Amino acid sequence: MSRNNSHAPESGEIQKYVYSFGKETDGDASMRALLGGKGANLAEMAKIKLPVPAGFTLTTEVCDYYYKHQLQYPKGLEAAVHAAIQRVEAEAQKRFGDPQDPLLFSVRSGARDSMPGMMDTILNLGLNDQTVESLAKKTDNPRFAYDCYRRFIQMYGDVVMGVQAEQENDHDPFDGLLEQLKNDLKVHNDTDLEAKDWQTLITQYKALIQKRTGRLFPQDVYEQLWGSISAVFSSWNNERAVIYRQKYGIPSEWGTAVNVQRMVFGNKGPACATGVAFTRDPANGQKVLYGEYLINAQGEDVVAGTRTPNPIADMATQMPKAYAELKAVQVTLEKHFRDMQDFEFTIEEGHLYMLQTRNGKRTGLAAIRIAVEMEAEGLISQKEALKKIPADSITSLLVPIFDRASREKTPVIAKGLPAGPGAASGHIVFAASTAEKLVAQGKKVVLCRIETSPEDLKGMIAAEGILTARGGVSSHAALVARQMGKICVCGAKDLVIDYHQKTLSVGGFLIKEGDFVSIDGSTGEVFAGAIASAPSEVTQVIDGLLAPEKSATYGLFAKVMSWADTFRRLGIRTNADTPEQAKRALALGAEGIGLCRTEHMFFEGNRIDFVREKILATTPQDRLAAIQKLMPFQRQDFVDIFRVMKGYPVTIRLLDPPLHEFLPQDQAAIEHTAKHLKVSVEHIQKRIAALHETNPMLGHRGCRLGIVYPELTEMQARAIFEAAAIVAKEGHAIPVEVMVPLVGYLGEYKHQAAIVHKVAQEVSAQNNITLNYRVGTMIELPRAALLADQIAQEASFFSFGTNDLTQTTLGMSRDDAGTFLPHYSAMELIGQDPFASLDQEGVGQLITLAVERGRKTRPDIKLGICGEHGGDPASITFFHKAGLDYVSCSPPRVPVARLAAAQAAL
Amino acid sequence: MSRNNSHAPESGEIQKYVYSFGKETDGDASMRALLGGKGANLAEMAKIKLPVPAGFTLTTEVCDYYYKHQLQYPKGLEAAVHAAIQRVEAEAQKRFGDPQDPLLFSVRSGARDSMPGMMDTILNLGLNDQTVESLAKKTDNPRFAYDCYRRFIQMYGDVVMGVQAEQENDHDPFDGLLEQLKNDLKVHNDTDLEAKDWQTLITQYKALIQKRTGRLFPQDVYEQLWGSISAVFSSWNNERAVIYRQKYGIPSEWGTAVNVQRMVFGNKGPACATGVAFTRDPANGQKVLYGEYLINAQGEDVVAGTRTPNPIADMATQMPKAYAELKAVQVTLEKHFRDMQDFEFTIEEGHLYMLQTRNGKRTGLAAIRIAVEMEAEGLISQKEALKKIPADSITSLLVPIFDRASREKTPVIAKGLPAGPGAASGHIVFAASTAEKLVAQGKKVVLCRIETSPEDLKGMIAAEGILTARGGVSSHAALVARQMGKICVCGAKDLVIDYHQKTLSVGGFLIKEGDFVSIDGSTGEVFAGAIASAPSEVTQVIDGLLAPEKSATYGLFAKVMSWADTFRRLGIRTNADTPEQAKRALALGAEGIGLCRTEHMFFEGNRIDFVREKILATTPQDRLAAIQKLMPFQRQDFVDIFRVMKGYPVTIRLLDPPLHEFLPQDQAAIEHTAKHLKVSVEHIQKRIAALHETNPMLGHRGCRLGIVYPELTEMQARAIFEAAAIVAKEGHAIPVEVMVPLVGYLGEYKHQAAIVHKVAQEVSAQNNITLNYRVGTMIELPRAALLADQIAQEASFFSFGTNDLTQTTLGMSRDDAGTFLPHYSAMELIGQDPFASLDQEGVGQLITLAVERGRKTRPDIKLGICGEHGGDPASITFFHKAGLDYVSCSPPRVPVARLAAAQAAL
Repeated sequence: MSRNNSHAPESGEIQKYVYSFGKETDGDASMRALLGGKGANLAEMAKIKLPVPAGFTLTTEVCDYYYKHQLQYPKGLEAAVHAAIQRVEAEAQKRFGDPQDPLLFSVRSGARDSMPGMMDTILNLGLNDQTVESLAKKTDNPRFAYDCYRRFIQMYGDVVMGVQAEQENDHDPFDGLLEQLKNDLKVHNDTDLEAKDWQTLITQYKALIQKRTGRLFPQDVYEQLWGSISAVFSSWNNERAVIYRQKYGIPSEWGTAVNVQRMVFGNKGPACATGVAFTRDPANGQKVLYGEYLINAQGEDVVAGTRTPNPIADMATQMPKAYAELKAVQVTLEKHFRDMQDFEFTIEEGHLYMLQTRNGKRTGLAAIRIAVEMEAEGLISQKEALKKIPADSITSLLVPIFDRASREKTPVIAKGLPAGPGAASGHIVFAASTAEKLVAQGKKVVLCRIETSPEDLKGMIAAEGILTARGGVSSHAALVARQMGKICVCGAKDLVIDYHQKTLSVGGFLIKEGDFVSIDGSTGEVFAGAIASAPSEVTQVIDGLLAPEKSATYGLFAKVMSWADTFRRLGIRTNADTPEQAKRALALGAEGIGLCRTEHMFFEGNRIDFVREKILATTPQDRLAAIQKLMPFQRQDFVDIFRVMKGYPVTIRLLDPPLHEFLPQDQAAIEHTAKHLKVSVEHIQKRIAALHETNPMLGHRGCRLGIVYPELTEMQARAIFEAAAIVAKEGHAIPVEVMVPLVGYLGEYKHQAAIVHKVAQEVSAQNNITLNYRVGTMIELPRAALLADQIAQEASFFSFGTNDLTQTTLGMSRDDAGTFLPHYSAMELIGQDPFASLDQEGVGQLITLAVERGRKTRPDIKLGICGEHGGDPASITFFHKAGLDYVSCSPPRVPVARLAAAQAAL
Repeated sequence: MSRNNSHAPESGEIQKYVYSFGKETDGDASMRALLGGKGANLAEMAKIKLPVPAGFTLTTEVCDYYYKHQLQYPKGLEAAVHAAIQRVEAEAQKRFGDPQDPLLFSVRSGARDSMPGMMDTILNLGLNDQTVESLAKKTDNPRFAYDCYRRFIQMYGDVVMGVQAEQENDHDPFDGLLEQLKNDLKVHNDTDLEAKDWQTLITQYKALIQKRTGRLFPQDVYEQLWGSISAVFSSWNNERAVIYRQKYGIPSEWGTAVNVQRMVFGNKGPACATGVAFTRDPANGQKVLYGEYLINAQGEDVVAGTRTPNPIADMATQMPKAYAELKAVQVTLEKHFRDMQDFEFTIEEGHLYMLQTRNGKRTGLAAIRIAVEMEAEGLISQKEALKKIPADSITSLLVPIFDRASREKTPVIAKGLPAGPGAASGHIVFAASTAEKLVAQGKKVVLCRIETSPEDLKGMIAAEGILTARGGVSSHAALVARQMGKICVCGAKDLVIDYHQKTLSVGGFLIKEGDFVSIDGSTGEVFAGAIASAPSEVTQVIDGLLAPEKSATYGLFAKVMSWADTFRRLGIRTNADTPEQAKRALALGAEGIGLCRTEHMFFEGNRIDFVREKILATTPQDRLAAIQKLMPFQRQDFVDIFRVMKGYPVTIRLLDPPLHEFLPQDQAAIEHTAKHLKVSVEHIQKRIAALHETNPMLGHRGCRLGIVYPELTEMQARAIFEAAAIVAKEGHAIPVEVMVPLVGYLGEYKHQAAIVHKVAQEVSAQNNITLNYRVGTMIELPRAALLADQIAQEASFFSFGTNDLTQTTLGMSRDDAGTFLPHYSAMELIGQDPFASLDQEGVGQLITLAVERGRKTRPDIKLGICGEHGGDPASITFFHKAGLDYVSCSPPRVPVARLAAAQAAL
């Protein structure tokens, strides 16, 4: 038995806790979990012969052991560390602690996922009163040597020995001593200090440590090493690391590795440098070596910002040999890691050393360009390229953007929630009617309201952008903005809006109606003044204003979308209420309308008067008459939409919102309506009072309207089917899907479906035509999801209305959650905003269950989703897994949905 | 093979479709499903030798066959019917269709469950132009014979031949001819018509049938019979029967049986009679023969109400022999059927015939008395007795009642929803403060409001009864009424209330403040004037005002409750917010408090000012100070409740309602508060505006309050635990259960529970005492139910808040459902009001799932329910099956819950 198993670890054999890298390397990039990201990539770089200073990694298993055994280390670790040190010594031709020519180390953390700045680092380890002298001599640079030593004492004193500020707002005590010294010497910069000054400081630092801890700063380099290793392992559980992990969902069991690496110095003299670089431009994706460096500096100097680094391109002239080496590294790294790399390097006496590499963060635009170009270069496959593009980033190709220079000279006066991405600039107005008026005069306006209501719709459509002082990302303004791809900043709380004076005041600025303001819906910033902007090139190409071949970004867009369509399984539809929205969505790749809300049509033109006439009617006859006046308008709306859709399916939701939403809101509007409809103001006020609801979201709306007023459903069905008949005769048979909203009981659905089927038969007979239609329902109440098996007996499709399903499942009103959800986020009580990204654990369960039960009753049932979540990538992944047939989202989200659907399928 | 199976029906053997009854009887009472209720009981009565006219029953299987085979009958049915007729003929010594001495039949429907008046009946079948003559001769009563014939033609013409009113509001055409004849003859009553007049009418009836149908009225008696049988089977699917079945949940597959029975006549002369009787008084349960009869009349005359029947007791003198027979039947029926019977009889020439018997409907009081007395008589067991008492009926022993005579002379002016059973009478007042003032003067008042709000609470408590013009059975008024056992009529829509004039006007009545009104919360009636009333005897005994042995109803109550407690498994707790409520509930048998709402306490005395101070505070310091002022009050409230509960567990819910509910509502109250708290009116108005919510039900309430204002939770926890410590030192260690409301996420629960545990530790340490407490949560959101497994990791009990769980699962606001739910009921779209009786299909699924998941994580988790459904018998049955540990209901529902829990267990 033992012979055959001679290579397997035997019981009692020492586990491998230490992995070396350098000329001989034990690990590689695949061992991220064991060696951490930094350690694994150092090993990988060493393997592919990039110039990595030798070192070794203590694995995350050591961390695990350390925490499970009262901060003790496993047996044999010490010996393994000694052995690893010997390998480094051999390679470096120096010895750790050697009083003549000491080998120095850095000790750094390195978890599986990067946690920048959260854990501790020790540099220059191995210096003591003796070795610092030989370092000074060897380098012929005493100032450098003593500076290194005092830095080491400071870091060690802080991190390992716990000498820190005693009160929260105090200065670091070491920095305090440094400042005092500079005061005493009347100098301003560290660079003005000389070797003897550093020596003075070293004495003071050591005294501080002794005073505070009662212990001496250790002169034994092994004591220094183990103290540092323990400190780094311990920093895995410091407060900021714990909070960071909670925020980003990193399990505490992962632990960190510890990397011990030979120090190289970028601050020894003019042939030394340190820097960071990207293999491509992280801002725009261009294939250039991008980054910055500082001559004669240590890494922390680049970060500290005390000196301004030079662009990396300058190296071509300043350090041509090192620059050539870096260019070669750029190619090697990309070829090897097959992604854009963000790396740190040090040049010591003309020699390049690689200290770290990782996949670089990048803007949306850069992500797209890099993925497309790497695919073209043959570095990655189409599938890999798709996976590298965050689905949301595609919107960066679609939003208008501000001219950068213009933006920088315009003051930011407030910040709200970025609710509708893009850049808008125009005259500020405080009323929807004023917006319409000014736009009719050819002006661009930004509509600014405390909050918006459906009455503001026409003004919102007219405006370039919408700015509100109240309401979250799910407020009316934000919803409309997303729906219409409108630029919007909402909930900018500092704004004080005075409708009467027509002014906006904030932080000393007083802005009057007609003044210029600008808003950036991607950042939430509000600017006082005009900023130049333009529609995106992709939009210009789609609108025929730019030839596709003239736009590089359109080329990127088209390529990514065509790949996405190759791989996705989910169908992509859009939520569109008007022909314009439908047209835009089709141009962006939608394959049908998943939600056409009929109520928005009610506000168009003067037809709102007929709606109000109906609501204010006192007899069923008058009510019916008012409804019948609406019919031709509704029919024409559908004709227009059907014509645009050219054979693609259209799902139409029957009237959903409570009737009071259609009544005038303020006194002026009430008086206007009274005069116009020849009824008394009192009558309107009475009707408003009668229709008032305590919880309108849970009130008389959805199919409950059509059940109490079946003539409404009948009118809408007739408008839909007559429109379908007209368009069919023109040669475009549109598959029409009539959707009953807010169904909770099968009985409700049957009642409404019966009316729709009856009207369909009548219209078929009258027009001698076979209508291609289905009737189905929204699943937007928990009860409907739970009883999906029953409802599927009659309904031929389900469309999940995840907005309302979220509100009811969580018992949380989107309109009111602003008072507590921000507290929840601040306290990390829940994950993502459930109105932005589907609550998969809760609401998702109901969807999964409804899918199963619906399909059990009716295997060929059509399943889609038309809530706001239809445009959210994480939610789309869930819908893909849940087995839905399609997602429907607002027109500007269609490209995101196409991409996210493809990523879900990969 | 065939030998051993000789008794089994062979393939091809004719199924038994016809069951005879009479001297030889095939069926019995157990065959209800096959023979229908009427048929089975006729057979049973025949078996026990009661005088049943012979006949036979066509089974429900024939009905089933009939509908499954295009209205054809099974092979062999005709032969079986013929054979059955021959048996009747043999017993009656007459022949069907015999021109000399005809046997006549009735043909009646009879489903498994009684569907009174829904299906068709034919009497006097077998009469034709010939047999009517011999009947006239035989009875020596031509007037009787021709009247019988014309009645038969009319029924047959209507039911079988379809001669009916042509327009919805027209008269029956046969009745039209009768009326015209009476007009022509200038007589008013049918009794004024003579034999020849009936003959004239017969000619007219036959002509009408021929004109309308083109067919002759059939003279062939077998054609008459089959026509009638088919008509009765067909009437199973007439519109009113279908609606009735939907309403009462009777499956359409059950079908009806058809009973063909020899006619006996109560209208042949003065020795004849017909009547209905109960074996006990259905109103009060007294063991007397109760009923009414008419001499010389047919059954339909009793129903028609054209003649006033005599009380059955009169028979003792008028028809002593028949009366003696009836008294014997009374004993036989009860002994045999072991329940109170409701039976129909006919006396033909001095002979008693039984035509039907069934379990009699009865009032709540009667149900209790009958069950208890039958058990005492040894007729039934305790278990059977319990099952015979509808659980709700126990409340009839507890509500005050009006004096009947006084009530009858007081005019009913309006009707609302019976929201709080009982009878209240007093001076009408229109403001809560007036109610308090008058009650302080020793007057009884009825508080009348358009609708009530928490501000009215003190006035509501003071008033005898509450009357509102708006709001359903779940409105604030109704909830408070149930909670406090207050008499209440709500939503009496016709009332026009003028707060300014202090008047109530309705239907010509103008009632001013101080006038007497009375309300009956069991019927919803509103009376103009005072009506005498008194508390129930049970209440008087409980309150020590009446010796138990002096009250028969208390004896009934005590016996039924003691039986119930023997058999039930579910614990019974109460929802109580005050010591008074707790005391009452304990007296009615509650075993703990399942829901103690802390917010009601906030309105007591002047502490609402501190609450308002807190809400209006502008700094955290002021807020904390205001909260700390509340603490001693809260603590004292809990001390008082704990003292009453003497060791029983108390579940306390942390603050739940949105803060705006605590702010003053109208201008006067705002001004008062401003003055009192020394803040500006504008500040209060601003705060009210800031706290305004679109959907408060889904807004900032429940644990969301305690999370944003942790000092609130801390104060409440401290008040609870300090109170527990005080009472424990007095010798009553109360198991305290602190309940976190509106939890959707485990994170929310953990946040709140941590505060509660922390305070418990502090109070334990300060008092050097071990507190007996648990922390748990309401399950009142679908998300909480779905994630019960997660939440149970931390929560040690669940209490289902079925009110909110219903609102969220159905997406239906109780406060707003009044605009559409009544339509739903009218259209039979859904079953019972989901706020009155649990929606078992929908909400029930979530409860079942949460029970399973909660127990899976924590097998010993304590499970209860504290929504309004805790007092509803059907819901209690569900909760028993779902495996809950207890239900909690309002104090007056405790006896109902005890009884329903026992019935669920049986």
